[in-house]
Amino acid sequence: MGALARLVESGPFQAFSVGVILLAALVVGLETYPEVLRALPWLPALNTFVLGFFILEASLRFLATWPRAGRYFADGWNLFDLLVIAASFLPETGPYAPVARVLRLLRVLRLVRFLRELQIILLALARAIPAMGYVILLLFLHFYVFAVAGVFLFRENDPVHFANLHTALLTLFRVMTLEDWTDVMYTQIYGCDRYGFGFAEELCTSPRAMPWAALYFVVFVLLGTVIFLNLFIGIIVNTMDE
Amino acid sequence: MGALARLVESGPFQAFSVGVILLAALVVGLETYPEVLRALPWLPALNTFVLGFFILEASLRFLATWPRAGRYFADGWNLFDLLVIAASFLPETGPYAPVARVLRLLRVLRLVRFLRELQIILLALARAIPAMGYVILLLFLHFYVFAVAGVFLFRENDPVHFANLHTALLTLFRVMTLEDWTDVMYTQIYGCDRYGFGFAEELCTSPRAMPWAALYFVVFVLLGTVIFLNLFIGIIVNTMDE
Amino acid sequence: MGALARLVESGPFQAFSVGVILLAALVVGLETYPEVLRALPWLPALNTFVLGFFILEASLRFLATWPRAGRYFADGWNLFDLLVIAASFLPETGPYAPVARVLRLLRVLRLVRFLRELQIILLALARAIPAMGYVILLLFLHFYVFAVAGVFLFRENDPVHFANLHTALLTLFRVMTLEDWTDVMYTQIYGCDRYGFGFAEELCTSPRAMPWAALYFVVFVLLGTVIFLNLFIGIIVNTMDE
Amino acid sequence: MGALARLVESGPFQAFSVGVILLAALVVGLETYPEVLRALPWLPALNTFVLGFFILEASLRFLATWPRAGRYFADGWNLFDLLVIAASFLPETGPYAPVARVLRLLRVLRLVRFLRELQIILLALARAIPAMGYVILLLFLHFYVFAVAGVFLFRENDPVHFANLHTALLTLFRVMTLEDWTDVMYTQIYGCDRYGFGFAEELCTSPRAMPWAALYFVVFVLLGTVIFLNLFIGIIVNTMDE
Ligand code: NA
Ligand code: NA
Repeated sequence: MGALARLVESGPFQAFSVGVILLAALVVGLETYPEVLRALPWLPALNTFVLGFFILEASLRFLATWPRAGRYFADGWNLFDLLVIAASFLPETGPYAPVARVLRLLRVLRLVRFLRELQIILLALARAIPAMGYVILLLFLHFYVFAVAGVFLFRENDPVHFANLHTALLTLFRVMTLEDWTDVMYTQIYGCDRYGFGFAEELCTSPRAMPWAALYFVVFVLLGTVIFLNLFIGIIVNTMDE
Repeated sequence: MGALARLVESGPFQAFSVGVILLAALVVGLETYPEVLRALPWLPALNTFVLGFFILEASLRFLATWPRAGRYFADGWNLFDLLVIAASFLPETGPYAPVARVLRLLRVLRLVRFLRELQIILLALARAIPAMGYVILLLFLHFYVFAVAGVFLFRENDPVHFANLHTALLTLFRVMTLEDWTDVMYTQIYGCDRYGFGFAEELCTSPRAMPWAALYFVVFVLLGTVIFLNLFIGIIVNTMDE
Repeated sequence: MGALARLVESGPFQAFSVGVILLAALVVGLETYPEVLRALPWLPALNTFVLGFFILEASLRFLATWPRAGRYFADGWNLFDLLVIAASFLPETGPYAPVARVLRLLRVLRLVRFLRELQIILLALARAIPAMGYVILLLFLHFYVFAVAGVFLFRENDPVHFANLHTALLTLFRVMTLEDWTDVMYTQIYGCDRYGFGFAEELCTSPRAMPWAALYFVVFVLLGTVIFLNLFIGIIVNTMDE
Repeated sequence: MGALARLVESGPFQAFSVGVILLAALVVGLETYPEVLRALPWLPALNTFVLGFFILEASLRFLATWPRAGRYFADGWNLFDLLVIAASFLPETGPYAPVARVLRLLRVLRLVRFLRELQIILLALARAIPAMGYVILLLFLHFYVFAVAGVFLFRENDPVHFANLHTALLTLFRVMTLEDWTDVMYTQIYGCDRYGFGFAEELCTSPRAMPWAALYFVVFVLLGTVIFLNLFIGIIVNTMDE
């Protein structure tokens, strides 16, 4: 069985596997074009070929570990392969067809198995998180406190952006990306009857003008920027130390 | 009394305190969902438990310093604890109910007392400010001069964004975040009768087209970016020196 | 006359000068509030006091160099002082009143004369420019080539944003700040009759849909970001070398 | 023929060449102003002079390599010169006039041939790409997977932004620049009948409200930011190592 192990680890076999993955990626991309699907009706059949090869590859890898099959399941990548294969058997019709298609995209991520450099980058990213753990906690505290406060202060006037905790967190994420954050602020400053609710006037049931709301948003953005810069600079300095 | 001091500083007591704070944070977050409050009507009662424990904890810490009670009040965290407790007795009904609820969020910030790493980060942030003091002064001068100039130049045409100093400062803060800054500029370039006052036409009483206003905004953004980069790079270099 | 020179360079005199400048800054800021001007009608009179002190200070500095008056005019800050004083005599009524008021803001910049740390920061900024000269030239080339191309390609369809070179440069500056850049792009992709000219339909005389315009904007943003990052990283590395 | 080679490499000749290129840049910029073209009708004639000099310069450079003409064609810059000259003979009338004018802008890029510092910067940029190759691949994977998933999940509800792969890639590029990204998200959260399709209601044929779409966008922005920061920090650290 050592011969099988050598085969699945050999350069040509791995190159062929990468080729099949790239083919799967290409096919799934082309399938987003209805006109291509009409012109090349045999395109989806390639998915069957890809799936067949994935099953063959997984079988070879499994047999290569025989008789110590436990070693096969100890490797996270093998489990991921099995997940990819299982996902391929979800029905592509009915209401969950989009989900089945999205899960087929996991195939593309098999690429990471074969590219050691990508693994190194992803590991470095994963390892940077604990080093920055407390700054991330601080950022989370910042968002949590402002989100709850936002619900209590602004829910009446702007139920669209501050209805409850998770809506407020999404709104603050938007504000932190500086994306049209002043629209959210001006709705508080002028009241929802005068600003921001043109697209959903029926939701503006308790308009209230709160000019002091500007402070809430400016402080949130400034503090958030400071914490984010801290996170960013911390990562730069950490990376350089290595 | 040394036994009491050892108790409040012991690992299990501190862990329990952190647990109560996290419970308080969870409860205040859940209270943003009306449907949860309806399903779990006993939820607000947990706040009474949290408050009770905070009072107990503060009492123990006070007694632990006995007979030198002055030492209790010399610790800023103890004063913060008392503030948190006092804020809990504000009435949660009437027009100031939202304020009382927001102040209850201070409880979550008690977390910082128990997490030395958060304190270190916050201290580092606080200590970075004096080192960058003169760049921050420069940034302030930049905003102040452009804000006053903006009022004198643009108030007639755009009273919404340049009515007076603090409104202009808010507008320039928005421009510095690059958030829809061209809307403010185009209102000056084309005049408020042709751009930007769709939502409040009655405020556009003295329209005036000033194409040269583009210079004001471009110079403000460019200079501000240069000063901000200076601040940013200064912090990176300072951090690395340590 | 050495005594006069010692006086104008003495700590108390400089502190008083700084105080007068801060007073001037405060007054010009308060003057942006019509209600304050009504409540404190004597406020503008403080400007006369400020101007009087500036004239006195300039006279003392001039006399301190006597009999070698040339040395007075050799110092750029003295020339700036004279400019500030001259600007104060512009009439504050008539069509140019806003300009006169804006020029009065130069007074605030006199602060830099007295704060050596601000001078150091500004000098460092000024010295960083030649080191980065060629990257800035590259950035300028990038803007110039895309602006001229934008006029030739997009002027017909979008005369508002691409009428001529300077309008296109302003538009590209906006795109580089990522401010609503897709509105400019979609106007080209869909044609001005279908997107973006709601506020000025009469200007959309030659609508034309150019889906390939997306490439122009994506390439401009990507290349611009690369050059800008280059500039930014260059400044960081240069600063660290010192 | 050594004398000719010395001539084209001499300082004055190169300075004159740079001058002609700058003249060409100035003329093409002035030509974006119809009023300037009317006032200075002889302006386009300068292009003929520029073209004439470029032909002369290319001929001299060719003759300077004589009899080993192969050496002339071995230099990429000489080939670029020939391309610039060829592009000048495209007709400036008819439907492709804008393209011909845009290609004339290549003349300005001849500047890089004469400015060694610009070449150094561009080479450094070009060399940074392979070092960052795998992070760029990761960024591409990130975009590709989310774009295909976006088409399958959101195409029905928002055919404008997720019609097919290349449209989705453009939309995600926009989201990554944080430009009005919440408009794209809210269209999915509320459905195209309630948000975002005011300008093209007839395209909203299958409205569907998908509140979970917020996750798709937040995860895309967060992951994209992490990968981009990785790329950015990697370039800084690489640059400093040199
Ligand atoms: Na933005
Ligand atoms: Na925006």
